[in-house]
Amino acid sequence: MIHPQQPSPMPVGKYVPFHEQICVELPDRTWPDKVMQAAPRWCAVDLRDGNQALIDPMSPERKLRMFQLLVAMGYKEIEVGFPSASQTDYDFVRQLIEGGHIPDDVTIQVLTQCRDHLIERTYDALRGAKQAIVHFYNSTSVLQRKVVFGLDQDGIVDIALQGARLCKKLEETLPDTDIYYEYSPESYTGTELEFAARVCNEVIEVIDPTPDHKIIINLPATVEMATPNVYADSIEWMSRHLDRRESVVLSLHPHNDRGSGVAAAELGYLAGADRIEGCLFGNGERTGNVCLVTLGMNMVSQGIDPQIDFSDMAGIRSVVEHCNQLPVHERHPYGGDLVFTAFSGSHQDAIKKGFDWMDRESASSGKGIDELVWGVPYLPIDPHDIGRSYEAVVRVNSQSGKGGVAYILKSERGLDLPRRLQMEFSAVVQARTDAQGGEVSPAQLWEVFEDEYLPAERRWGRFALKGVRTDDEGEGGRGTWSFRIDDRGVEQVLTGSGNGPIAAFVDALGAYGVDVRVLDYAEHAMSAGGDARAASYVECAVGERVLWGIGLHENILRASIEAVVSAVNRAER
Amino acid sequence: MIHPQQPSPMPVGKYVPFHEQICVELPDRTWPDKVMQAAPRWCAVDLRDGNQALIDPMSPERKLRMFQLLVAMGYKEIEVGFPSASQTDYDFVRQLIEGGHIPDDVTIQVLTQCRDHLIERTYDALRGAKQAIVHFYNSTSVLQRKVVFGLDQDGIVDIALQGARLCKKLEETLPDTDIYYEYSPESYTGTELEFAARVCNEVIEVIDPTPDHKIIINLPATVEMATPNVYADSIEWMSRHLDRRESVVLSLHPHNDRGSGVAAAELGYLAGADRIEGCLFGNGERTGNVCLVTLGMNMVSQGIDPQIDFSDMAGIRSVVEHCNQLPVHERHPYGGDLVFTAFSGSHQDAIKKGFDWMDRESASSGKGIDELVWGVPYLPIDPHDIGRSYEAVVRVNSQSGKGGVAYILKSERGLDLPRRLQMEFSAVVQARTDAQGGEVSPAQLWEVFEDEYLPAERRWGRFALKGVRTDDEGEGGRGTWSFRIDDRGVEQVLTGSGNGPIAAFVDALGAYGVDVRVLDYAEHAMSAGGDARAASYVECAVGERVLWGIGLHENILRASIEAVVSAVNRAER
Repeated sequence: MIHPQQPSPMPVGKYVPFHEQICVELPDRTWPDKVMQAAPRWCAVDLRDGNQALIDPMSPERKLRMFQLLVAMGYKEIEVGFPSASQTDYDFVRQLIEGGHIPDDVTIQVLTQCRDHLIERTYDALRGAKQAIVHFYNSTSVLQRKVVFGLDQDGIVDIALQGARLCKKLEETLPDTDIYYEYSPESYTGTELEFAARVCNEVIEVIDPTPDHKIIINLPATVEMATPNVYADSIEWMSRHLDRRESVVLSLHPHNDRGSGVAAAELGYLAGADRIEGCLFGNGERTGNVCLVTLGMNMVSQGIDPQIDFSDMAGIRSVVEHCNQLPVHERHPYGGDLVFTAFSGSHQDAIKKGFDWMDRESASSGKGIDELVWGVPYLPIDPHDIGRSYEAVVRVNSQSGKGGVAYILKSERGLDLPRRLQMEFSAVVQARTDAQGGEVSPAQLWEVFEDEYLPAERRWGRFALKGVRTDDEGEGGRGTWSFRIDDRGVEQVLTGSGNGPIAAFVDALGAYGVDVRVLDYAEHAMSAGGDARAASYVECAVGERVLWGIGLHENILRASIEAVVSAVNRAER
Repeated sequence: MIHPQQPSPMPVGKYVPFHEQICVELPDRTWPDKVMQAAPRWCAVDLRDGNQALIDPMSPERKLRMFQLLVAMGYKEIEVGFPSASQTDYDFVRQLIEGGHIPDDVTIQVLTQCRDHLIERTYDALRGAKQAIVHFYNSTSVLQRKVVFGLDQDGIVDIALQGARLCKKLEETLPDTDIYYEYSPESYTGTELEFAARVCNEVIEVIDPTPDHKIIINLPATVEMATPNVYADSIEWMSRHLDRRESVVLSLHPHNDRGSGVAAAELGYLAGADRIEGCLFGNGERTGNVCLVTLGMNMVSQGIDPQIDFSDMAGIRSVVEHCNQLPVHERHPYGGDLVFTAFSGSHQDAIKKGFDWMDRESASSGKGIDELVWGVPYLPIDPHDIGRSYEAVVRVNSQSGKGGVAYILKSERGLDLPRRLQMEFSAVVQARTDAQGGEVSPAQLWEVFEDEYLPAERRWGRFALKGVRTDDEGEGGRGTWSFRIDDRGVEQVLTGSGNGPIAAFVDALGAYGVDVRVLDYAEHAMSAGGDARAASYVECAVGERVLWGIGLHENILRASIEAVVSAVNRAER
């Protein structure tokens, strides 16, 4: 085939490929052969990295709600602010500590640049905390060294070490607080790996961590600059080159500039990281931090406990949207409105069959649906697990087929339509959606269905059934039946005989001049219990036409006769 | 450190890890050592996979606008519908062909299931097209074989081959149309690799492609089921196991259930794929298809021409939002409102320094900014390249520092504040944002600035300058100056002498009882050209206080005296 794509006007000459900027080579990488086994240590940075990227940063009320949400979900390390950078952040840290809002097993984390007066104010902010992580950073990338700092590598190391030493010294001022450290070579992804290892190792030397009192070395993709496998290679390289590795918690902090933050976190975790920093629904600078919801739920889908509770996804989302004043997108994995919804006919059909299969498995095994291995096509997880109903799973529009229509009638109305009836009715629905466009809600679908098969109060239709009477059937089950009907407002009594009431009614109609044959028939109770109604479906040939009729009635006899009436009326409509 | 994360209530026992479902083993993978070199063949599926996932599917008008957008951007293969599944789709294909909307170098693609009546109607729809890709598919996964089809592998292969054979046969009905084929083993990610290769190879055998007339074998992540490296391994495996590889275009079709569709596409492309299907801004079933905008712009950022024109990103976005009736999220890579915006002080500071550095490079090299290698911290690409101005790059709220404030005053007002003045003024702004919250727009920032340093029409301030007069300066530059000032409504004439007008004014103020010393001074023209105003910045010690004053005037003499007045007034405010 010809391949006629043409050069574009995009000015690509001004960009240097990542591999020409930073060398990341690891031919003996091991991470691609690994699989995830357990949750990492999580750190939620919504209150700092997330908050600093909001048009309208959180008020103290919103900050506290976010903190309480994160605690309730199970996060144990929470970065709560940059207290030396703004009075709001400082005051919030004080509020958390003085208000007793921090559970004993939760560690707050605070960010500071490696500058003396900022570090000093950071320690002031922490007074009275049981424990805390002081997260100090300086930028190490080639670009920032050149255009921001005008410093060589030694100068950048000095900034880091001066910060580390001051931190150690200020520990004395907080004798009742258990202080841990996190160091980030900020803009790590733009830093030569050898230099990143050097600055981290020199910081480790100053902080002097132990296996019982580790240092967190955090390697941020401050800007995502390459495909996520390159980040993973760099993490495995660093994990091999960090000194005193047994005293180091290797932490990831991916951003999402290339739309691959989740992949970077997952591959970096396979590559040897111990800990991941991110935000709920991927809030954060520019394109955001890696999304903690996606990472956690991806683990759930693989049978791994994320150690975080996502079961009330709607509640989580509503707090996050309130705090961030930013919406969660319709297609955001796990949290978006549309992510468990199928409009396409073939998907709907498969989903319906998957649910049916689960039902049968449940019935035959005696286990509840929730005890079975999940297996419904197009639904990677059970929406119930995060508090969503199945109602919105299948929605009907012009792209939908019989599966979706049948699914909704079954789940919403208890009607289990035979397959050819599904096809007949979905053509009715599709004619409507093709003409009018848009979505058909379950209520609208029911209106269309009722009008087609069960016109309420005889809005249309030639016949209505008024009564059925039979004498004792004779031996062999044949008998004579009489049917009282209303034919265009005139009451008539028709009599017929046959092997059961439907056959007798068909016989009676024939004698009355209406040519009907029954081709197929199905009936089911609409719900369990004595007062349940029955649904009857009858496929009839009425003259030249083949079409279905439906009857719903408490009396199964009446339901089946009504179904024939429905088919005949439709034929004459 | 203690690691106190606790088990969650998530029901993880019902999920089987991917590697226990499907075996993908490729220890000798080569893709992680590769880097991207050129654009793949793109296929835009917005009008089919995207459209089928919309609450309100596109009207004919919206469909045509989307088609025309895709053509204008440079896409040459466009899947335009599933014509056998709905009348709307059928009619749209006819409209494209009969209306002459398809350029000669664009190939439309239509989707069909492997069912006889659907394939026949598909060929009907294509009558009169110059060329077309018939994309036929059937589902092959373990799960769908079990719960949807109830068929074994042979039964599934039969469906595919029956479809392939009917397609070949129907070619005769369209002698004037150049027909190409695409086959998708749908739900490929849930299919055993050996079986996926078998069904594809048997289809290839039937279609009998040649290097000049290839078949497209499309391997969809219908549901994203594992990390993207696993998808890449599977693609490299398939690329090795497909027969007649030189006659096959290997195509990817990633979805985004785990939030890694972009990574899956990029790693799969490194693994040997030739072609990628996706949608603009990642529309599509559930969490969406892979985003073509992100993939293309990621290439731009690496110096690779995507062969697609993204230069009018706002225009592209507005058509897509109109057609899909779904918003593009604020943090969507490249297209979102906030993705080039920095609120954080340290980021703003670095961005400002990056722009300054680019300016200096431009001046010293004589090249335009657009000819330089791009290098601004936190901005992976130049927003100009996609038609965005720099105005929104830096926005000010309580998380901002001096860099952002200085950037806005420079870019919006032409004021280049000295560093200590930046710090002074950003404290003024931060006091306001800490108290009131929210963002400060450039207009509001200017209001605050004017009120602080340049109160319009003397809303406040003790002194106003009315006139300056000097006799001839004597030798050595010293002279006597007289200054006509308004002091709380009373006009006074002050006289002083010194080495220049500022020194003379300070001398005059001292004699008048106002103690001022000038500590620093800077002045610049606010724009090029003869009528440009000058901006003067004077740092003064007024009594015990050190603070800045500013003067703006067409006359540089007046600007500098006004700056001293501004500082004195602020000290007495």
